[in-house]
Amino acid sequence: MMAIDLNSDLGESYGAWTMGDDGAMLSIVSSANIACGFHAGDPQGILRTVQAAVQKGVAIGAHVSYPDRVGFGRRDMEVGHAALVADVIYQIGALKGLATAAGGTVSYVKPHGALYNRIAADAVQARAVIEAILAVDPTLTLMGLAQAPILAQARAAGLATVAEAFADRAYLPTGHLVSRREPGAVLEDADLIAARMVQLVREGTLTAIDGSTIQLDAQSICVHGDNPEAVAIARTIRTRFEAEGLAIRSFI
Amino acid sequence: MMAIDLNSDLGESYGAWTMGDDGAMLSIVSSANIACGFHAGDPQGILRTVQAAVQKGVAIGAHVSYPDRVGFGRRDMEVGHAALVADVIYQIGALKGLATAAGGTVSYVKPHGALYNRIAADAVQARAVIEAILAVDPTLTLMGLAQAPILAQARAAGLATVAEAFADRAYLPTGHLVSRREPGAVLEDADLIAARMVQLVREGTLTAIDGSTIQLDAQSICVHGDNPEAVAIARTIRTRFEAEGLAIRSFI
Amino acid sequence: MMAIDLNSDLGESYGAWTMGDDGAMLSIVSSANIACGFHAGDPQGILRTVQAAVQKGVAIGAHVSYPDRVGFGRRDMEVGHAALVADVIYQIGALKGLATAAGGTVSYVKPHGALYNRIAADAVQARAVIEAILAVDPTLTLMGLAQAPILAQARAAGLATVAEAFADRAYLPTGHLVSRREPGAVLEDADLIAARMVQLVREGTLTAIDGSTIQLDAQSICVHGDNPEAVAIARTIRTRFEAEGLAIRSFI
Amino acid sequence: MMAIDLNSDLGESYGAWTMGDDGAMLSIVSSANIACGFHAGDPQGILRTVQAAVQKGVAIGAHVSYPDRVGFGRRDMEVGHAALVADVIYQIGALKGLATAAGGTVSYVKPHGALYNRIAADAVQARAVIEAILAVDPTLTLMGLAQAPILAQARAAGLATVAEAFADRAYLPTGHLVSRREPGAVLEDADLIAARMVQLVREGTLTAIDGSTIQLDAQSICVHGDNPEAVAIARTIRTRFEAEGLAIRSFI
Repeated sequence: MMAIDLNSDLGESYGAWTMGDDGAMLSIVSSANIACGFHAGDPQGILRTVQAAVQKGVAIGAHVSYPDRVGFGRRDMEVGHAALVADVIYQIGALKGLATAAGGTVSYVKPHGALYNRIAADAVQARAVIEAILAVDPTLTLMGLAQAPILAQARAAGLATVAEAFADRAYLPTGHLVSRREPGAVLEDADLIAARMVQLVREGTLTAIDGSTIQLDAQSICVHGDNPEAVAIARTIRTRFEAEGLAIRSFI
Repeated sequence: MMAIDLNSDLGESYGAWTMGDDGAMLSIVSSANIACGFHAGDPQGILRTVQAAVQKGVAIGAHVSYPDRVGFGRRDMEVGHAALVADVIYQIGALKGLATAAGGTVSYVKPHGALYNRIAADAVQARAVIEAILAVDPTLTLMGLAQAPILAQARAAGLATVAEAFADRAYLPTGHLVSRREPGAVLEDADLIAARMVQLVREGTLTAIDGSTIQLDAQSICVHGDNPEAVAIARTIRTRFEAEGLAIRSFI
Repeated sequence: MMAIDLNSDLGESYGAWTMGDDGAMLSIVSSANIACGFHAGDPQGILRTVQAAVQKGVAIGAHVSYPDRVGFGRRDMEVGHAALVADVIYQIGALKGLATAAGGTVSYVKPHGALYNRIAADAVQARAVIEAILAVDPTLTLMGLAQAPILAQARAAGLATVAEAFADRAYLPTGHLVSRREPGAVLEDADLIAARMVQLVREGTLTAIDGSTIQLDAQSICVHGDNPEAVAIARTIRTRFEAEGLAIRSFI
Repeated sequence: MMAIDLNSDLGESYGAWTMGDDGAMLSIVSSANIACGFHAGDPQGILRTVQAAVQKGVAIGAHVSYPDRVGFGRRDMEVGHAALVADVIYQIGALKGLATAAGGTVSYVKPHGALYNRIAADAVQARAVIEAILAVDPTLTLMGLAQAPILAQARAAGLATVAEAFADRAYLPTGHLVSRREPGAVLEDADLIAARMVQLVREGTLTAIDGSTIQLDAQSICVHGDNPEAVAIARTIRTRFEAEGLAIRSFI
């Protein structure tokens, strides 16, 4: 039976502020990228999401970020090497503590937002994240953008990696994402998205924005859950996968 | 050979701001209560202190706090049960991550400031701290104020405990600390302090503020390092202990 | 024409997190208690709400809080006098800056959450808030709980005051609010609430929880907007007031 | 009598953490760039510094920053236009509130750290800062790096500007600062520094790092106060100016 992982960003509420529908998404995905407090998530809320993930058997990943809560970790920052290493270790450690308390375990790391985009191709900041993971727990898997240089860099350093595709994003013929600033960058038709993902799992290919077919080596698919439409798309993908006999299963 | 632990609050710098002289204190104490980011300590600074503690063989404790950086964790807060449990787990987890990265391990928990004072006798908030420790790592020892109710509460819940005395504080005949608001509450004569601590280790007694002799069961002595005078007092205690043939050794 | 002020807590989004429906509420109320960044509100979001308030002619109040974003300012804190004075000045000043930039002006101060409840009767912290207002702008009006001692204290110190009633709360025969922990403390029937408020404006009375009639001297009514049901209640009150020929008008 | 302004960064303590010696520096400088809470400064500490500045007749400037306390505002950040405008307004407003409470007034704005460096030549972020100042108080003067493009940009937008030179920095023949990464970038000889500054005031020239003489149009000189050596250099400059009959006077 063919299988793939579905992942989503969860635990992104903060104090009195709610974001997304973690309960709904934990019934859809196999891996939860859980905020660690630097861009989102307060300890009590994170713990609640971790407990729900454990209960549903969903794998837990540390969704580490730059320290920028008001900017939701979406703003590029020039963080020095030592600070970035320590920031990542701190966040992974904190989530590990909460996971342990919930009877679970953190099994992977997915950097968030601006950090994710930056390290996809910036080998210097990527090195800091890789060092941090190796230092705190070398058995953690690093999840990154399919075809991004960081994946090879991490493997060369001894880390297991998982490449992810974005369900709702258009791709260039080069295999890169179409920039959000371009028209057509974000897909909204749930059925079309689900069909594309079935093709990705079955054949390892996607139709690029110019109509050409590209190879994409991805072991996980990122879906969103921050609004009802996004949850509906994620659910459509899951339903379609089940109908097609494709298993949704964490890479762990 | 008689032995006792010396502990001090370290890792309390924050970003560009320095507090205390961690290097000097790590040559004096056997246990370091290291800030976890809620009242003080940023990840990079905490990691640096943890690394130094590991290098000097000093035991590492999680100095957990209310979330109040601007108030340095010194202000009483009405934190609800679930939030307090999660806050404590988060901080311990974060420090565990940094300790692991430094090749060390967290072996105890000492609540800080207002939380320390509150839970000494408030069984409700004490219960939250105890629950948190049990959930994240039941092998951690809880350090608390000698004679405070929390110590028995923690032991009844299954935690190991260590009682501490304060080197530079006067005691009431009841064994309680003289309030800082009272004259004579804080001692400043290094030789007198050292002599008192030798008596405490040898005989388990202290001279109270009224001249009476009290029993005090303490396995650790808290010394300060936040200013040069405090460091000098701590050094005098260590020197005097060595001269008297008393070992300074963590309780771990 | 009889008139009363309707006020609501606005500007409580934070970064990527949304709270309430400021646009809807600004069409209902005559006074907006706008978060100043300590419990909620980031500068960009606050500015947006201030601009909308100016556009709709709604009076702007500084909704000052303890510094506790993760606790949404709802947790009691032991903040010292000098810190509380400065915290309140800082928040009022920041909101004044944003109001000026929006072509508006801050005309009153309403403390938020735990600070609001604390100073209603704690003359020491109340004095700090009053001192802060006098120091930064003595023409600002202080809004407080009807019948709370702080109102007389503020007037004695030279401040104008406005007393507010809570639309959706039950009252004791003493004129105090029924505690939220008691059954029946929070009212949910929009028509009943609106009828009670009409009576309050027309006759200065309310029916207490025991059926007795109490006098309540209030120049403003607080309505909520943090969920769709609350917005609907607020709108019902406004509609009913308009039908009854009661003007909704700021006290400024 | 020839005159120049001496400015320094003050109010940079935070809660329990002290930075610099504001009392000493306020006896030396004529303008105080006072932290507004985003990179340093808590309300109580800022108020204390503002009060001391008012008492000594030192002009007060808003030392506005990116929101990065742990990085002390020294890290470049990609802050969007609307957020940057609002962040700057908020900080200026907060400082204005505290200044008013102290019986003083904010008369200029000097961006701090990474923001200062970024906007010296980045016209986009510079525009946001200029817009913010115009919106909150167009009578405020903008202090910037001598010869930086932002000064002309600000004047074109209607703001008064002041150009500053750095007392302890070497200059290139182009009039730009020698990068801190280069040897000889930071000067440490107090007498040499004082002599250079006398020449700058008297003749409007400086000796560049290659020995050539450059013209530098500066109405203010920035001196540091974050360590005892820096305070000593600043005091030497003041003493030398007084001996030479040069007045130290704010540009206001």
